[in-house]
Amino acid sequence: MYEMSAAKKLSELAKTAPVLSEKKAINCKRIESMVCSSLGLKLLYGTERVNDEIMDALLSLAKERNVIQQMEAMQAGEIINRIEGHESENRSVLHTATRDFFEHQRTEAKARDAASASFQELEKLKRFLEEVNNQAIFTDIIQVGIGGSELGPKAIYLSLEAYKKEGRNVHFLSNVDPDDATSILRKVDLSKTLVVVVSKSGSTLETLTNEEFIRQKFLEKGLNPKEHMIAVTGENSPMDDPSKYRASFYMWDYVGGRYSSSSMVGGVSLAFALGMDKFLDFLRGMSAMDKAALNPEFSQNLPLVGALLSIWNRNFLKHQTKAIIPYSRALTRFSAHLQQLSMESNGKQIDRLGHFIDFETGPIIWGEPGTNGQHSFYQLIHQGMTTVPIEFIGFRESQFGQDLEVKGSTSQEKLLSNLIAQAIGLATGKQDDNPNKVFKGNRPTRILAAKKCDAYTMGLILSYYEHLTAFEGFIWNINSFDQEGVQLGKVLANQVIDIFAKRHKKEEGDPRSFPEASSYINLFDSL
Amino acid sequence: MYEMSAAKKLSELAKTAPVLSEKKAINCKRIESMVCSSLGLKLLYGTERVNDEIMDALLSLAKERNVIQQMEAMQAGEIINRIEGHESENRSVLHTATRDFFEHQRTEAKARDAASASFQELEKLKRFLEEVNNQAIFTDIIQVGIGGSELGPKAIYLSLEAYKKEGRNVHFLSNVDPDDATSILRKVDLSKTLVVVVSKSGSTLETLTNEEFIRQKFLEKGLNPKEHMIAVTGENSPMDDPSKYRASFYMWDYVGGRYSSSSMVGGVSLAFALGMDKFLDFLRGMSAMDKAALNPEFSQNLPLVGALLSIWNRNFLKHQTKAIIPYSRALTRFSAHLQQLSMESNGKQIDRLGHFIDFETGPIIWGEPGTNGQHSFYQLIHQGMTTVPIEFIGFRESQFGQDLEVKGSTSQEKLLSNLIAQAIGLATGKQDDNPNKVFKGNRPTRILAAKKCDAYTMGLILSYYEHLTAFEGFIWNINSFDQEGVQLGKVLANQVIDIFAKRHKKEEGDPRSFPEASSYINLFDSL
Repeated sequence: MYEMSAAKKLSELAKTAPVLSEKKAINCKRIESMVCSSLGLKLLYGTERVNDEIMDALLSLAKERNVIQQMEAMQAGEIINRIEGHESENRSVLHTATRDFFEHQRTEAKARDAASASFQELEKLKRFLEEVNNQAIFTDIIQVGIGGSELGPKAIYLSLEAYKKEGRNVHFLSNVDPDDATSILRKVDLSKTLVVVVSKSGSTLETLTNEEFIRQKFLEKGLNPKEHMIAVTGENSPMDDPSKYRASFYMWDYVGGRYSSSSMVGGVSLAFALGMDKFLDFLRGMSAMDKAALNPEFSQNLPLVGALLSIWNRNFLKHQTKAIIPYSRALTRFSAHLQQLSMESNGKQIDRLGHFIDFETGPIIWGEPGTNGQHSFYQLIHQGMTTVPIEFIGFRESQFGQDLEVKGSTSQEKLLSNLIAQAIGLATGKQDDNPNKVFKGNRPTRILAAKKCDAYTMGLILSYYEHLTAFEGFIWNINSFDQEGVQLGKVLANQVIDIFAKRHKKEEGDPRSFPEASSYINLFDSL
Repeated sequence: MYEMSAAKKLSELAKTAPVLSEKKAINCKRIESMVCSSLGLKLLYGTERVNDEIMDALLSLAKERNVIQQMEAMQAGEIINRIEGHESENRSVLHTATRDFFEHQRTEAKARDAASASFQELEKLKRFLEEVNNQAIFTDIIQVGIGGSELGPKAIYLSLEAYKKEGRNVHFLSNVDPDDATSILRKVDLSKTLVVVVSKSGSTLETLTNEEFIRQKFLEKGLNPKEHMIAVTGENSPMDDPSKYRASFYMWDYVGGRYSSSSMVGGVSLAFALGMDKFLDFLRGMSAMDKAALNPEFSQNLPLVGALLSIWNRNFLKHQTKAIIPYSRALTRFSAHLQQLSMESNGKQIDRLGHFIDFETGPIIWGEPGTNGQHSFYQLIHQGMTTVPIEFIGFRESQFGQDLEVKGSTSQEKLLSNLIAQAIGLATGKQDDNPNKVFKGNRPTRILAAKKCDAYTMGLILSYYEHLTAFEGFIWNINSFDQEGVQLGKVLANQVIDIFAKRHKKEEGDPRSFPEASSYINLFDSL
């Protein structure tokens, strides 16, 4: 990417990037002017190491890559998930279609067909939940799925748990670790429990193992698994078998797992727990931000500005990681979802032409909610030898609205005060005669601000991050929608599993087949 | 540190570090010989980028820093928490004394006094729990605390939840976010709930706010808070007030928050939920590893070898982060605890003489359990542009022992197979004609292996990481036991809180006092 003319300019500008710890560098005018607003979200970036010239150059970079056209192409259903000249997934990328039911619907055939297929599933879900609600038996749902079939739905469920229907709970079972299943089963009454099994391919090892485990438990209790189990899978997958499930919902290969929270992957559990109206609010928020991501007025395009600031920190200021720190307990697993969203999308080594690249792509994403982090890893953030850019997320109001004034301020105000204090303190730093009390400052951060964490707002925020990720990929000219990097591990794991299976059957097998793995197994056996 | 002669040698050796992806670089002999064993734990480091010469040089580095003498000094109670020539905490570091009740007890006066003070609290806890058990009323305990008063106890509780006493639960309330408290209170019956408030200083903002919130809730229900509330705090702190608590337990300034799980900070909740015998097993494990960390036979000193490998990756191979990935759902929050333990201890910019340093100190620690991570961020781990060294944790057996054979192997075997496959695959990589299917390999990892995740083993593992962290600090010659870097944020947060408080009182205050914060508040208000 460094060959682009805007990138060359940015490399130059990076040498004299603003130093936030200089006297008066952080001031009211800067804070109040460096704001990008859209749909009630505000991105406050006065504490990033940018100035107008840098922002202009970043916008030029976006222009040079035709990012809005690329976003249009994606949402229109053009085949953008591919590596030119090489065998690849060769597909459309249409997660936006799974919520394109509101204003300004797409008109292109592929996008329209996809939206209508999604809408059909949504209608199916509505009818299914009416039936379930009428039965008035079920209190719990266990979602069995891993990766995209867990992280997004779980993060969103937890973020909106405050609004869930009385007496309804969702549990997520992902890991092949047998203790995971056992510990969840100890918490539920199986006779009142639905199980939604989510796997696009219908062949995910962890998911099928856990499904089998739960089926056995239903049988042990004298219950008929079919009355409790629901499938979310691809049409014609091994799991597309109505004889085994009470209901089946479809997903499609043009919706990547990590982009699938708005499809039935998230829909079944979220609508069960929150009610269909809240799930629709969530979809409405996502769709609204999808449209806003097409705004050619770059400076008002929130996900684009977010992506450009990330690229500035990654490729020009050379920071390897990015922390996402929501000051909200509701977002307790949101950073883990964004970790997948970003790292699986943009942790790539080749461009869309199959060339190995020589610049930094997706950073390492990590984070925990504030204020907890302040009592944990903020020591390194303030005084460590490695600078960590941060994206804070903050809300003006709490969810429950139950708050207590202690010493003249509410808890929510204290929470917000901490967020604001950190953004300022990390930028300005502090001088001191005692070297241990010196804060060098100049640590870049930004704040994604919203009024309240409700279903619509979570839709906006999730879509913001999905498109931020896509825009990064467009600018890096990489394919953000495949995940070849997870294949090798799967292949090798099956080879190791074979060794175990052979041992069970007392078959010797060929000891030379995978001797290194056998060495490890022996080391574990010797414990 | 680069001025040390061993460090100079290591810098040279780094230029020709072993390339794990070379043909036959990973082989059975290497895997089986690169093993460090202690107390039933094994550190398998055949997939680190080291060879015998590098290991020798790393051991020389440790020798040059007299690390065993430093560890002896720490455990003996010498004043090592200080910055020479500057105002500093100036204290002993005696978390090891909080479990020094078993074999080979220390004989130095300070260490002995500290252990005996700890033992007294343990005896007090025993009596208290007998009383509670006899009453047979309480089912739940809410631990109110943040940072070290939450992360360690929570990580350990979750890791051993499989063994908890029937009908007992622990909840952790940390964040000042009011929704956090509300959501926990929705889950418990306050009349059956104990609340343990943990703050060494007795003045932690989040903790006191949450305590006050819960006191109100007790009163609203017509319950007497005093009958439910327990304090864990420093002697003579504002919380050391028997009139307000049913029981009080002490902690001391020579036990840092992030090293306090073995003190009453972890003790009250863990012993309540698991029983005193299991808590003692946990302490026995910690103490055993404390003694093993003094082993002058470096190659058998597990935490020291762990520290040296980390330093190799950080200072010589120049990796900024380290992922800790347990293949165990029980360790679901363990990486978050280690994030604090390591980053708060070693995210430092000055040495023990107060000089600003010019080498890399503590890395960014992050991670999620496997196999979940495989379906999330492993794309970047395998094919991203940034190498992430990994420490895997694996167990031969599951906790519940409830497992199911699917396709000839158990779930636990599948879990272990995935771990082994990843360690091998990340090292060897894979060539392919399709550039998208190329895995460059040469990614360093290691495995901490144990038989089963039980209380004793978790004690061993936690102490392993505590001493790994301390050894890193000894070699970097930094003070791993203070946390000045968290102070600036606290000071500024109080100033922002003041602005809110003044607004409640309709006081105008001096608008010039912290105008930048007022700008942020206005931006949030305008949402």
